[in-house]
Amino acid sequence: MKLSDLGEFGLIDRLSRDLITRPAEVVQGIGDDAAVLHLEGPWWLLFTTDMLVEGVHFSLDYATPAQVGIKTVSVNVSDIAAMGGWPVHGVVSLGLPTRLSVEDVDELYQGIRRAAKEYGLNIVGGDTVLSPERLVINLALLGFVEKGRAVYRSGARVGDLLYVTGSLGKSAAGLYLCQHPDLTLDPGVAAFLRQVHLEPRARLTAGRILSCAGVTAMDDVSDGLAAELREICRASGVGCRVRAQDIPVDSRVKTVAALAGCDPLDWAFCGGEDFELVFTAPPGMARHVEEKLAAAGEDCRCIGEITPAEKGMVLELADGRLIPLEARGYDHFAS
Amino acid sequence: MKLSDLGEFGLIDRLSRDLITRPAEVVQGIGDDAAVLHLEGPWWLLFTTDMLVEGVHFSLDYATPAQVGIKTVSVNVSDIAAMGGWPVHGVVSLGLPTRLSVEDVDELYQGIRRAAKEYGLNIVGGDTVLSPERLVINLALLGFVEKGRAVYRSGARVGDLLYVTGSLGKSAAGLYLCQHPDLTLDPGVAAFLRQVHLEPRARLTAGRILSCAGVTAMDDVSDGLAAELREICRASGVGCRVRAQDIPVDSRVKTVAALAGCDPLDWAFCGGEDFELVFTAPPGMARHVEEKLAAAGEDCRCIGEITPAEKGMVLELADGRLIPLEARGYDHFAS
Repeated sequence: MKLSDLGEFGLIDRLSRDLITRPAEVVQGIGDDAAVLHLEGPWWLLFTTDMLVEGVHFSLDYATPAQVGIKTVSVNVSDIAAMGGWPVHGVVSLGLPTRLSVEDVDELYQGIRRAAKEYGLNIVGGDTVLSPERLVINLALLGFVEKGRAVYRSGARVGDLLYVTGSLGKSAAGLYLCQHPDLTLDPGVAAFLRQVHLEPRARLTAGRILSCAGVTAMDDVSDGLAAELREICRASGVGCRVRAQDIPVDSRVKTVAALAGCDPLDWAFCGGEDFELVFTAPPGMARHVEEKLAAAGEDCRCIGEITPAEKGMVLELADGRLIPLEARGYDHFAS
Repeated sequence: MKLSDLGEFGLIDRLSRDLITRPAEVVQGIGDDAAVLHLEGPWWLLFTTDMLVEGVHFSLDYATPAQVGIKTVSVNVSDIAAMGGWPVHGVVSLGLPTRLSVEDVDELYQGIRRAAKEYGLNIVGGDTVLSPERLVINLALLGFVEKGRAVYRSGARVGDLLYVTGSLGKSAAGLYLCQHPDLTLDPGVAAFLRQVHLEPRARLTAGRILSCAGVTAMDDVSDGLAAELREICRASGVGCRVRAQDIPVDSRVKTVAALAGCDPLDWAFCGGEDFELVFTAPPGMARHVEEKLAAAGEDCRCIGEITPAEKGMVLELADGRLIPLEARGYDHFAS
């Protein structure tokens, strides 16, 4: 069978069976943003890994090596943030083509170093090997979270409100601008969106606040909102209803989308790499959560609610029509 | 500057500066087989990672996907064994070319699963991405070791005896046989050596015994004995004198080397991937260590001693001549 016949999620389901030898040490294994592991003391250990491949996850045609380093760290920290924890220690594996110079690798590590300092984590080891064609970077990252405070994808309950932090689609707009450098646009706007794409930041502070507040489910928006909602609904055994007009999309994203002839909601739902947090909270907790985030300078927006599984995943358009959210996600269905 | 001008060790030295943001949490950072990290409770946390690239670390021309999985796990477990600890949790990143089938990836994971069970560790997460040309596998592995019992490369003292477990050169002989399948040889011998190369096992039991016995320095033989001795001597600020005739080399390795027209000691010193343990112990501890290993069915051999740094790294040949060990390591200097 071809890998493309099974797809990424089918493959992961197939591979992740029977991998736990000592279950008493594992709180939560494969299937969330990070594994949750028992430790002595007040904290659980979080463990996650992400591999970035040149030409697949980044291009050195428009990203500097330092930006690739920053992105590698942020992608992993975002997984720790989505569990409600904080990052502590990472190990970096580099597969290096010989066409890269020592200065390129220095710069890559400069990006890793800068991001590690920003997130307060240590890089404690690594491996450096030859990778003839493509630069490959793997970061494996440890974090901590207070016992009982890890936030899973599986905790959403019918009636919970559905939220997203920040705004969506900026990374997709930035990628479009990287790929279309001749687009006529305010240079400040273009530079801002490109930087959001090339140097993403994880929502670590928001994740900590949401974990302490006790939100019921959380995921980071790495693969686009539609994919993350599918993950939460699947893991929680629920459906959801999302209001299109409440999806937060920055006006600068709308400007680029208009020039590109795209629907900015497509970027929000399918673009991915925004590294915002999507989460659910019972209505009674909503004001508390909003206030706590606002007090820390973080923002969130209620975009819908959790429904029974049999209602499916539904998008409510501005004119009141309801369409399946799946359709939007995969088929770039126009509203 | 080209990467080849600096070399792997020069590059690692250059990159590993200024990567610790929170030093109070780190017992030992970059520079040993695994990082050693503070935890509450009786144990330290060990953290290591290794990346294997198709065509660089393995070839699917003669390794099955399951063997690649076994090797990936063993390489990492060997790093934990060399610190004196035991492995607990791993996360696997796979970069997959689309030419691989689902069955190939199943088989790869079957190897990972089998090795994980054998070593008693959990695979708790991973990442699966596209890698157009080459299969890339990264395992990041956590282990534990009793506080104060981690064995570093830096602990060797002048007068310590130098030991190696098992025997050396089997993996290099096995690789030679994989690359020269038409060599006329007893099929049982050929199959044995090929399997040693393709399905290496980490010396986990020996590492635990040696850590509990309190040996002074330890490393696993992943890059050949010469390279590991350099690591220990450099980290400990000492020299060493190794007796060529005491280097344990299996008679089957000698047979293959004779057919290949190679010196089996070259394979022992430079071949690598034997995943034996090289360690140092004060003379007063020697008998205790040998007895403890023997009682567990493990073997070791005294191959020399630790000397002052100014004596350098010296190989004593069978005829009594002394030659620099470095020369042997890098230039395949004939004895």
